[in-house]
Amino acid sequence: MRVVPVILSGGSGTRLWPLSRASKPKQFLRFGTARSLFQDTVLRCRAPLFDRRPIVVGAHDHRFLLAEDLQRIATDADILLEPVARNSCAAIAAGCLHALRRSPDAMVLALAADHHIPDAAAFAAAVETALPEAAAGRLVTFGIRPDRPATCYGYILPGERLETAHAVRRFVEKPAAGQAARHVAEGCLWNSGNFLFSAAAFLAELERLAPEVCAAVSQAHDRATVDLDFLRLDAAAFSASPAIAVDHAVMEKTDRAAVLAVDYAWSDVGSWDEVAAMLPRDACGNATAGATVIVDGKDNVVHSADRLTALSGVSGMVVVSTRDSLLVVPKSRAQAVKGLVARLRAEGRGEAVETLQTFRPWGNYERLDIGEGYQVKRIVVTPGGALSLQKHRRRAEHWVVVRGQAQATIDDETRTLLPGQSLHVPRGAIHRLANRGSEPLILIEVQTGDYLGEDDIVRLEDIYNQTTEDGADQ
Amino acid sequence: MRVVPVILSGGSGTRLWPLSRASKPKQFLRFGTARSLFQDTVLRCRAPLFDRRPIVVGAHDHRFLLAEDLQRIATDADILLEPVARNSCAAIAAGCLHALRRSPDAMVLALAADHHIPDAAAFAAAVETALPEAAAGRLVTFGIRPDRPATCYGYILPGERLETAHAVRRFVEKPAAGQAARHVAEGCLWNSGNFLFSAAAFLAELERLAPEVCAAVSQAHDRATVDLDFLRLDAAAFSASPAIAVDHAVMEKTDRAAVLAVDYAWSDVGSWDEVAAMLPRDACGNATAGATVIVDGKDNVVHSADRLTALSGVSGMVVVSTRDSLLVVPKSRAQAVKGLVARLRAEGRGEAVETLQTFRPWGNYERLDIGEGYQVKRIVVTPGGALSLQKHRRRAEHWVVVRGQAQATIDDETRTLLPGQSLHVPRGAIHRLANRGSEPLILIEVQTGDYLGEDDIVRLEDIYNQTTEDGADQ
Repeated sequence: MRVVPVILSGGSGTRLWPLSRASKPKQFLRFGTARSLFQDTVLRCRAPLFDRRPIVVGAHDHRFLLAEDLQRIATDADILLEPVARNSCAAIAAGCLHALRRSPDAMVLALAADHHIPDAAAFAAAVETALPEAAAGRLVTFGIRPDRPATCYGYILPGERLETAHAVRRFVEKPAAGQAARHVAEGCLWNSGNFLFSAAAFLAELERLAPEVCAAVSQAHDRATVDLDFLRLDAAAFSASPAIAVDHAVMEKTDRAAVLAVDYAWSDVGSWDEVAAMLPRDACGNATAGATVIVDGKDNVVHSADRLTALSGVSGMVVVSTRDSLLVVPKSRAQAVKGLVARLRAEGRGEAVETLQTFRPWGNYERLDIGEGYQVKRIVVTPGGALSLQKHRRRAEHWVVVRGQAQATIDDETRTLLPGQSLHVPRGAIHRLANRGSEPLILIEVQTGDYLGEDDIVRLEDIYNQTTEDGADQ
Repeated sequence: MRVVPVILSGGSGTRLWPLSRASKPKQFLRFGTARSLFQDTVLRCRAPLFDRRPIVVGAHDHRFLLAEDLQRIATDADILLEPVARNSCAAIAAGCLHALRRSPDAMVLALAADHHIPDAAAFAAAVETALPEAAAGRLVTFGIRPDRPATCYGYILPGERLETAHAVRRFVEKPAAGQAARHVAEGCLWNSGNFLFSAAAFLAELERLAPEVCAAVSQAHDRATVDLDFLRLDAAAFSASPAIAVDHAVMEKTDRAAVLAVDYAWSDVGSWDEVAAMLPRDACGNATAGATVIVDGKDNVVHSADRLTALSGVSGMVVVSTRDSLLVVPKSRAQAVKGLVARLRAEGRGEAVETLQTFRPWGNYERLDIGEGYQVKRIVVTPGGALSLQKHRRRAEHWVVVRGQAQATIDDETRTLLPGQSLHVPRGAIHRLANRGSEPLILIEVQTGDYLGEDDIVRLEDIYNQTTEDGADQ
């Protein structure tokens, strides 16, 4: 009986704006690393005790990000799509229901997709240690032994000794600064928000303690529809679930809660301070990613995606530079970013929620330049990907392949284009672009016309069933 | 007898990095305005008392920036090119020698190209007032009546009353903080570094007080060669001149110095504080240009060229965002930028000296994207401009016209391309691109190949006489 990872890709990630956006939250980011937090979470579950096919529960809007991240690490998964966000209890419930279909004895490890745990072996060992408790019907949480009186985490006070873990005496909300030290002193552990239990045991407690969540999610899962590689939870049913965290709905109420104290390094990457801890640091405590020069400054956090960032005489500052947005905020005020993002949203600024790169079922695109009467985009099509069969009423397009190979269809003619080759798509021509090769296709598209809006698209056929609400292909 | 403006386009502009670079210093920048400081300086001299054809003395490396800026304001000028920088005395000497060729009685107004004087009428009136003094053989400076005890400017103490101005009693170097107030109290004026004199009078004093400068520059001007619309001062002769400021070489030594006290607003735009004074300010004293959101912060200077800049809980900070570089420095430490730029130079970082946009005789280009095996550029060709007849050994090019019209020659065939039309330039093909139209030509160039360095160019013919040292066309 292997443990089924249920990976929860929730979270809007406004705290790390402008690096994270609603369209690409924290779990999809790389922090000076080769892989995203989501990919690292998936790869953390590769020890023999894990089922190699995780269950991923994520937002409908992020489905292509999830699929692409999984494809890049060559992992098959069941991807359950939440039509709306209903917090962690509903997501875990959906994952458990799905695991039950695989086996009535399924053992589930519910993991946040956006945590950082560098030591996968220590993590797997902890799961193995917790297994007997879960097998005995307990709902096990992993309690991190604190190395500082952090105020950004909730705490758990362990109680009586069980087989390999302890019963939970008390859950403690994120404390005030003065209280945190006391919690640490009395032996409290950080509540990491990751859980191990049998699916059946969890759902039994859910039915008892949060019957509305249980009923709504059960119905949503029963009525789920298959869409490409995704399982779409039924929107009406899922929406009826209360939006509640699993801690409040189940863990704090059940008498089956257990906590295993663990020592591995763990972070929920919930603040720039925690991001800083993941980045290389210089002798002055400056944590940086990207091209950065700091003169006469210390304890800064600088994340510079695409250009040189220079600080002179600045200390304790967070500076985050992305292609379309720049944030400067003192470390001590970094919590205020949430309010800032709310204001940007209220002002209708697209930068608040979207990245420059737009993700589509077939890959992604990004605008490189725009001017009067023209626009330039870089389009990346993943192997096997195909844009819809479409036409534009008011723009012509010009494609130049720079990597991989394109299968381009215009009206009735289909051609293969290699790097350096190009194709003109006249205004009104019916066309399709596909990547039938085995490596990513990259092409530069130059649009010309009197109107270049994304809504100038007539979609005639689409293998991804994209609806009008999904917006244009590109 | 009209006054000939001699506009001195010197200055490396490191103090305003990353907005200014060696390749595009302060005089070519726009500070929330439609025109550059250089253009504004030229246009300031449009009153009837001025000769409509200014003499511009500038660096060889900036000749196309000068020519383009002048073209855009439809102004003809004599452009003298300094082969090397030799400070203001040599530059003014060259301008005076050139003015003498126009008339032996030439009256010269020597102006820095990078000062900000919003009231052109007040400025012209001051020049008119100073004219009788200049006509009497005096070397007149314009002394700005201080509105604060600034430490960033030199001071001039006026002496006895002359016809319309005063004799200079004493020049005072930039003072320490404590001394500035005393200078202001005793009636000192800011030394604006702009001068009015007859060319003959200045050169006579130069010969007497700085004969080495006089001899070197005279020879450089005698041996100057015409190159397109430029007059190139002879390199060997000009290089022999001492590099000295006109204040030290002449003004502080001559007994003909006069100062006219003026009240118009003036700034040498030598610091971010002075830039801030030129930008719109919000109620909290934040001076901003570009898309900026500031929450809970005051007295910041934010210059955001191409993306959203958000500050939260930050005050008194200078934040300058350009496409390739970002600077964060406290206002109080802004003088340290010079040292920062020196360090970037020492580390060999191109951002220290060059902008992303590269200026050429025929227009400019800018990289939009680069990846393995490809590169995308936006190329702008001014009307009448033509790139050299050339070929590349290791890359193919693909041109898509997006604005204006291109005359494209490949091997023996010449075609005209309109927006939306494109052309493939195979590796090794001899080609030329020209703009024979009346509006700027904009095209997107996609390069593909195994080597994309700027030095892969074989230039067969060039109307601009570009040498190998000028680098590739683009």
